[in-house]
Order: sequence, then structure tokens, then C-alpha cells
Amino acid sequence: MQRSNQSCRSSKRQLLKGKKIDAMSSEVNDMNPYSRLMALQRMGIVKNYEDIRNYTVIIVGVGGVGSVAAEMLTRCGIGKLIMYDYDTVEIANMNRLFFQPFQAGMTKTDAAAQTLTNINPDVVMEPHHCNITLVDQYDAFMDRISHGGMDGGAVNLVLSCVDNYGARLAINKACLALDQPWMESGVAENAVSGHIQLMLPGRTMCFECAPPLVVADGIDEKTLKREGVCAASLPTTMGMTAGMLVQNVLKYLLRFGTVSMYLGYNAMDDYFPTMNLGPSNTCPAYMCLQRQEQYKDWDCVSSVMPWKAEEAAAAALVEVVHEANDWGITCDADDTPAEENANATTTIGEGISIAYERSHELQETVAEEDLVQPDGDLDDLRAQLAAMQ
Amino acid sequence: MQRSNQSCRSSKRQLLKGKKIDAMSSEVNDMNPYSRLMALQRMGIVKNYEDIRNYTVIIVGVGGVGSVAAEMLTRCGIGKLIMYDYDTVEIANMNRLFFQPFQAGMTKTDAAAQTLTNINPDVVMEPHHCNITLVDQYDAFMDRISHGGMDGGAVNLVLSCVDNYGARLAINKACLALDQPWMESGVAENAVSGHIQLMLPGRTMCFECAPPLVVADGIDEKTLKREGVCAASLPTTMGMTAGMLVQNVLKYLLRFGTVSMYLGYNAMDDYFPTMNLGPSNTCPAYMCLQRQEQYKDWDCVSSVMPWKAEEAAAAALVEVVHEANDWGITCDADDTPAEENANATTTIGEGISIAYERSHELQETVAEEDLVQPDGDLDDLRAQLAAMQ
Repeated sequence: MQRSNQSCRSSKRQLLKGKKIDAMSSEVNDMNPYSRLMALQRMGIVKNYEDIRNYTVIIVGVGGVGSVAAEMLTRCGIGKLIMYDYDTVEIANMNRLFFQPFQAGMTKTDAAAQTLTNINPDVVMEPHHCNITLVDQYDAFMDRISHGGMDGGAVNLVLSCVDNYGARLAINKACLALDQPWMESGVAENAVSGHIQLMLPGRTMCFECAPPLVVADGIDEKTLKREGVCAASLPTTMGMTAGMLVQNVLKYLLRFGTVSMYLGYNAMDDYFPTMNLGPSNTCPAYMCLQRQEQYKDWDCVSSVMPWKAEEAAAAALVEVVHEANDWGITCDADDTPAEENANATTTIGEGISIAYERSHELQETVAEEDLVQPDGDLDDLRAQLAAMQ
Repeated sequence: MQRSNQSCRSSKRQLLKGKKIDAMSSEVNDMNPYSRLMALQRMGIVKNYEDIRNYTVIIVGVGGVGSVAAEMLTRCGIGKLIMYDYDTVEIANMNRLFFQPFQAGMTKTDAAAQTLTNINPDVVMEPHHCNITLVDQYDAFMDRISHGGMDGGAVNLVLSCVDNYGARLAINKACLALDQPWMESGVAENAVSGHIQLMLPGRTMCFECAPPLVVADGIDEKTLKREGVCAASLPTTMGMTAGMLVQNVLKYLLRFGTVSMYLGYNAMDDYFPTMNLGPSNTCPAYMCLQRQEQYKDWDCVSSVMPWKAEEAAAAALVEVVHEANDWGITCDADDTPAEENANATTTIGEGISIAYERSHELQETVAEEDLVQPDGDLDDLRAQLAAMQ
């Protein structure tokens, strides 16, 4: 890690605090920005939408994916958004959503905080014009993960929306050290594939167990530009990746649906692979091995999606409370434990139906034996990664 | 159809024309908004990216999906964008991407045209504050489909991004009459599913053959609001649907990858079903039956994705041009016609690989016998639709 030549802008950062509302209203009128979100409760999708105001999310990288993710979370009324980026807005960024030409030259974090505060003053914005891979800025980043939450404690999630290996490794290291849940995202250099991945230290694959499948190389945009070439990018693929990411954030924080451990997107064929990636017991990151030991008895469904078991239990209860049984017919108790049914149902409100559901053969639970274990073929990738640290 | 009380704003519409560039540059510098798009050529994804400047797309409905679709197409540098919407911006729309609070009270079309012209002055914007379902405004809409193109001819695509049956039926009727390719999109009222669908009159299912799977009822937002309730919506699901839609538009217009005939999105399980929907030979729309007769010998791959056959032929040619054959060994000619291989390969540039591809079992060609034919269960839906006309 290099030491930075200039001080981090986080020291004199703006803490943009808007006029906070007292409560989110579900009243339907033209002036209420939350009516369509609070309707998620009436529809039976989310139990307590307003919980979102208690959550803090850090977004590292406010580019093609990160800026759109930040806008989505802001419009959803997230409690607090902490943003990191060391770059400035350029006209060359205009092929992606969010930034506008009049912002060229501004730091991405200041430009984003300004726009987002205009969109929703209820969200606390904390922009940091910083490079978290520089040693003196990394410690401040660690501190914000630990103490940036609404209650002064740890934040709820860190989102990696960066375009290079170095920043991903720094986020991975910090989150392993702090046992901080995070989500990784990436878009390929040819602009036609992307992915998101939930990272739980010791429980799922870390970035050093194996790098994500789609990140094509270790070269960031600035390096490419010096060489007179650039990666391709499309607002569609970047927007889709941001949508996949923030949808997973909403499901994870607001406790509904099935949180994806890994979701890929191949735009050429409209193909969206999902998979569960377990940690490697030969991971070069010592902290990852320690976390694996700590979480060796971990169970995915009850840890990540406890509402699945609750929903299954509620569904089982409905079955038991049947109509009056005049004939005294008895039946055997359902001997399938609630946990086993957990992944089979997606409970939504009465009178509402989902147009189609993933078939149950495809929708597997995360069992130890199903976890993809990285194998020996990754050795040279690891060596490459180690050389970059 | 009702007659409108007031004249359509299209009569006094603004034709916002920006400073047009001469050519899209692929030069990598901070000031070039097209470098990342032109890089798609260097990466081998698109043959002639600049073709996009010749295309005109109509977007009907500039709400949660339509506004984001318009922004994506604008940033991609589409030639001309014609937008229709009869609504104004409200603070209650702020839970979706694109519009900002300062635009409240403006017509959605004017607000969008203003923002989009600032983002990319190279795109010709034609906003119409109109309700295309009203009889006197429908004719003007038909005229713009027929003559709105860059060359004064028909536009290249119509995108339906509306929230009600009436507008979908009007678009369907106009496109059937004019033999105009269009794409339908929709998001469910519970905010957790969406879909897009390519509509080719006589070749694929029309909106009267069977309404799309996800549109839950015939009630639009204004009606719901009068009753003190509203549909739920999320910026994530709307952004994903816009991304799926515009990605399909780019593939269709710029001739790459596999164009999806139907792509669904279930956010609860991150499930993305694809299918091919053929027209019904008992469709109540007479014009649909006529177009079916006109296109009875139609072939999907050669009509919608001619580049697939070209790519397969090019790949076959590469196989034939093998190294010098000193031993005079001969082999049988490959007897698989290029067309049969068409769907099997996705050709991309040298040195570039896609992280994952849809397995070939899933990636079926559109064969007559595979087409889903709507059956008798749809009779009451049709009666319901007919009653609304």
C-alpha cells in the first residue's frame, strides 16, 4: 500500500443533513414520496418498510454502478449513505446513468451528494473524496465501517462498486477484519456481463478465496486511459447490475424474498446464473480462515434469511387451524420441519399473486455439499493477486 | 374511445434539436462521451455502433420505466426520441429514478426532454404531452409512427412503457395496422416482478392474443389514487425492467447477441424466465389474423436475428480455411446448415471471453411447434378486454 501525498477530503467532509421527516406516511397524495414504498406493506411484500430509515450503507465507487445504486437507495429512503470515490466527473462518463455534463470537474462524491440531497433530503449523506487503498485513508475507512451506523455502531452493509482489484482487496481485507457483511458487484470490460455477490466473512467465499468470475483484469480505468484505450460500458448493463445489487440489499435489510448469494447477468443471451460460493479452506487470507473457524456451524437460511423459517412456520400454523372436523377424522402431524420448507414458499399478501416463480428444482437451499469449492486451478490467480498487494 | 376536451400539446410541441456532431469518435479522452460506446466495436460486440444515430424510437409512457429507458437511449446516442405522456411530474413519483423534485408540476414529456437534451444534445427530442387513447390524438400518434423516422419514414421501434390496458390496446392496434415492430414492458402492482416482450405483428403474440402475464388489472394509477390506494413501486424493479428493455432494443437495432422474445423478472427469487409466444389463430383482432396470414412462412432467426446466420457462416468459413494439408487427407463437408447453428454461437472479439453462457438446452430456437399457443382459458380475459375498448 502507498501512502497518499495529499490529505483525505474526509477530514473536511460535508455532512449533508436534510430536514428529517418524523415518520414515513402511507397516505396517497401527490406530495408524498413514500406512498408507493409504504404500499409494499399493504401488498404483503415487506413487514416494516420504515425500518429502512435505521440502516446505513457504505458505497465504495460512485461510478456507473455505484451512482445508480446510491440513487436507488436514496429514493427508497435509506437512513444514511456513506460514499467513497477518488475520481472526478468527466464528459467521458456520460454514457452511463446519473451524472450530468454540468457536473464535469466536480468530485463524484460531492456531485452525487448534492443531487441525492435534492432528490431526498431525508437521507443523511456522508461523501468522502478518498482513495481507500492508500494506507492513511484505509484506517479512516475502517473507522467509518465500525462507527458510521445511525446509532454510532457498525454500518449495515458495504457495497463494492469499484472497477479494479486493489480497491476490492482493500474492502475484502477491511470486512474480514471487522466481520462486516458486504456485497460485491462488477461489470465486464466488454460491457455485456455483470454480477453481484453477497460476502459474509468466513461463511461465503471471500475475494481472496477466488476473485469474482466477471472481473476481467487488474487494470483500472485510469491505467487503460493512459494507454489510449478504454473499457466498453453501457448504461443498460450498469443499470441492471445496480438494480440487481440494490434489490438484493432491500431483500437482505427489509427481510423479504430470497437473498441471492451470487447473481450473474449475461446480456448477450439474457442469462442470469445464480450459485452459492463457499469459502476455500486454502484461502491465502489468514483472517478468512479464522472467520471460517468462527462460523463453522453456520447455517445459511437461518442466518441470512430467518424470515423464511418464520414464513414456513406461519404457513404450517394456517394448515393446522382447519375447519370443524365433525367426523373426528385424525391425520398424522406434518413431520417436515419448518426449516426444510423454508425455501419452498415466498409468502405475499392475500389476493396478490406473483406471475411466475422459480421452479423448485432450481431453487436449492444452501447445503454444505452444494457449495462450490474453489480448486487448484486458482493458484496462479492467487499468486497474481498476492503480487498486487 | 373518447374524444379529448382539450387540444393535444403535440400541435405546439417543441422540437428540441441539439448541436449535432459529425461523427462519433472512439478517441479516449475525458471530453468524449462516446469512447466507451465505440469501444464495443473494438471488443467485437457491435459491428457499427454509429448506426444508432440513424434510428428513431418512440416511447409511450415516460414514468418509472419509460423515463429510465429514455435516459439510457439518450446516453447511448440514439438518433431521435419521440416521447408520449399525458401526465405531470409529482413528488409521489420520487421513489422511482429520473425525475427530480424541482420538476414537480411540469409535464413529464417536457421535463424529460429538458433533462435529456442537457445530457446529450446530439439526440433529437420530440416530446408530445398527449393521451394516445383519445381518438383525435390517436391519429396523430399513427402519423408519427409512419413518418417520425430520421428519414421521414416509419420509426424503428415503439416502446410501450404504460401502466394501463387502454394505452396498451391503442399501441397494439396502431402497430398491427402499420405493421410496426414494438416492445411491450410492464411491472406488477406489487413492485416485485416485471417483463419485456418483442411484438412483431402477425409473427408473435399480439396484446389481444393474450395480455402480457404480469399486468395485473385494467386500472391505471389515476383511478387507484382516486380510491385512496396506490400500486407499490420500487426504483430497482423499474430500473431493471428499463435495463432489460433497452438492452433488447440495442441488440435488435445494433444486431448483436440474442434478442429476447419475452423476458420476465421475479425479484423475490431473482428468476428470469424467457419464452417464445406465437400469435393465436383465434385472436379477436382481425388485423392480427391478417398479419398472421401475411407472415405465415416467417422464420424467427433469419427475420429477427439475421446476424446469427452470418456469424455461423463466418465461423464455418474459419473452419474450412485450415492449415496446409501435406498429407492430402480429405474430410466430409460439414452438413449442418449455417441456419441450424445460428443460435449456438455468440461471436465476440478475439481475446475477449464471456464469463458464462446460457446452456444450449435452455437456449432453444423458435420452432413452430415450440410456440406457446394461448388456449381457451383466456376467453374471459378477452371478454374483459373487449368490454374496455
